[in-house]
Amino acid sequence: MEKRVYNFSPGPAALPLPALEEAQRDLLAMPGAGVSVMEMSHRSKQFTAIIETAEANLRKLLAIPENYHVLFLQGGAQMQFGMVPMNLLRNSGKSADYIVTGTWGKKALAAAKTQGDARAAFDASDTNFNRIPEASELELDPNAAYVHITSNETIQGVQFPTEPDVGDAPLVCDSSSDILGWPVDVSKYGILYACAQKNVGPSGVTVVIIREDLAAESPADLPPMLRYQDLAAGKSLMNTPPTFAIYMVKLVTDWLLREFGDLEKMAEVNRKKSGMLYDVIDGSGGFYLPHAQANCRSIMNVPFRLANADLDAPFLEEAGGVGLAALKGHRSVGGCRASIYNAMPVEGVEALRDFMLDFAKKNA
Amino acid sequence: MEKRVYNFSPGPAALPLPALEEAQRDLLAMPGAGVSVMEMSHRSKQFTAIIETAEANLRKLLAIPENYHVLFLQGGAQMQFGMVPMNLLRNSGKSADYIVTGTWGKKALAAAKTQGDARAAFDASDTNFNRIPEASELELDPNAAYVHITSNETIQGVQFPTEPDVGDAPLVCDSSSDILGWPVDVSKYGILYACAQKNVGPSGVTVVIIREDLAAESPADLPPMLRYQDLAAGKSLMNTPPTFAIYMVKLVTDWLLREFGDLEKMAEVNRKKSGMLYDVIDGSGGFYLPHAQANCRSIMNVPFRLANADLDAPFLEEAGGVGLAALKGHRSVGGCRASIYNAMPVEGVEALRDFMLDFAKKNA
Repeated sequence: MEKRVYNFSPGPAALPLPALEEAQRDLLAMPGAGVSVMEMSHRSKQFTAIIETAEANLRKLLAIPENYHVLFLQGGAQMQFGMVPMNLLRNSGKSADYIVTGTWGKKALAAAKTQGDARAAFDASDTNFNRIPEASELELDPNAAYVHITSNETIQGVQFPTEPDVGDAPLVCDSSSDILGWPVDVSKYGILYACAQKNVGPSGVTVVIIREDLAAESPADLPPMLRYQDLAAGKSLMNTPPTFAIYMVKLVTDWLLREFGDLEKMAEVNRKKSGMLYDVIDGSGGFYLPHAQANCRSIMNVPFRLANADLDAPFLEEAGGVGLAALKGHRSVGGCRASIYNAMPVEGVEALRDFMLDFAKKNA
Repeated sequence: MEKRVYNFSPGPAALPLPALEEAQRDLLAMPGAGVSVMEMSHRSKQFTAIIETAEANLRKLLAIPENYHVLFLQGGAQMQFGMVPMNLLRNSGKSADYIVTGTWGKKALAAAKTQGDARAAFDASDTNFNRIPEASELELDPNAAYVHITSNETIQGVQFPTEPDVGDAPLVCDSSSDILGWPVDVSKYGILYACAQKNVGPSGVTVVIIREDLAAESPADLPPMLRYQDLAAGKSLMNTPPTFAIYMVKLVTDWLLREFGDLEKMAEVNRKKSGMLYDVIDGSGGFYLPHAQANCRSIMNVPFRLANADLDAPFLEEAGGVGLAALKGHRSVGGCRASIYNAMPVEGVEALRDFMLDFAKKNA
């Protein structure tokens, strides 16, 4: 078999090997079914067990309160960029506040503006999105329909260490790149949504955790597939869901529960992994430069530049040569980025750390 | 390995075994990539080749003219039930005509009504959707924004043998359950859309073939993920697409091209398969009863009832016992349904035919 590399891709990202192995084993025929999971009815007994387990796993890991729906939708986080304002802003007679700490928050705001009065209550573009706001910097409208944040900006590696205080307005959060990376208090959120392809599964499924009363506000002038209330009433089965992607979510969350038990333990490992890389960066005497300010450094995405930009290309090429893949940074930040989601083993980060130390020594 | 059955599921449906086998072989690491296809960037060289091949295969099989976009979207046909009127009806100042020949057309019309003046230009609900309209029965508005049809109604097994004449209005077609089943003249359509999970791949990806001038009409007051024009400009990569599902579309269309060459040949096989079952039904002396009228019988879905409804349960149970699975009909039609999409081998249909003949003989 082809040798697997350590995959630092920001997403679609590395998946746990045991989940892939189980999927591979059963790909032609699920035990007891005689057909592939891709070939079975989404209303069959076997698939019902799969989707119910996936939801139960998420509820257990995130301690999701009972008054929240857990939906498996399609379209990625960007479909939520549209659905959130279509459901909660367009007919509300209110405005919505967006706290913009990176590229994805900016895109979410732009999509919301097509639906109504969406405004930036904070925007860190003047410092190339390297920070989160102080409480005093937030220009919040107390009557906002909701306040939107991006808990972890994948490109800039900027992560809220905890939820900002946004008053009484429902907090809506794009948690695409840090969901399941550490514990969160779901009861603080009105909506928590995440595309799967970083920490939850493959691309093609989006997890939307929404408080029941907010789902109930869905206006009538939307088609059913865009109304949270209809989707919740249909329990993600209003039409054929992305069955294979949901099956992978089950396998990934099975693995997380089996391997780590809970998100406290997962967070401990993620802090250890990210800490190793930030230590190399901070201890490099300026050879490697971080992007995010220290108080909001992401435990999932570690963007960094080489002070000598001419070394970017050799760094990436040599890293690739020793099986450390997909480390190129996003063009808006430059340099490199190590995405180290749950499925990245400690050994992979140790290998990258050692490579970085070695590369700095040779090229200092 | 678990024994595979003949799977007559209406969808998610049987996939070609060679496509599943290739996916299984490479599931942990794509040759040359060192990561699973689920773990690679949608902008990587390897995935670019996959999505471009999937599109090229579809263009070749369906002879799609150059002035049509081919989009790989999410949300299934039901998302298109909403997107079509959001893009083409809501701001048009016109009405839209729906030719309703079954359950799915009815749902498409209901979704469109949330967006504007959508009307039934024909509705066969009075005969439990067992027929297509005569030309004289169509009450078309010559100024309609578009005319919508469902080329094959999966539940009722009612299929248009050819496109109805709808005048100058763009023809929009839900072809979910017969796309790639036989040749069609794409140039007759404004939009041809299809969820994948019958003839094209697994659930989680939707193929939308749209004429460029219609995509260009997308209004500005929609979020980008719902605007055909933005999705076309982004070449299905505006955000992370359902990469694994698109990979499966590539494998399925690779297989179709390799095994059958073109849709003329595929249609010949599909006519042979469906003909075998209709012959059993017609020759059963009323033991088996068809649903659709003879001039619009589907080559993909063959619904039938047993005249003695008490025999439904034993029929399904005995069939299941000999590896003929998922034959239960939809409750709105009752009885049984054999969905025999492209991936159902002739041998599977022969086995069902023989079982039906035998069951009729034993229970007549």
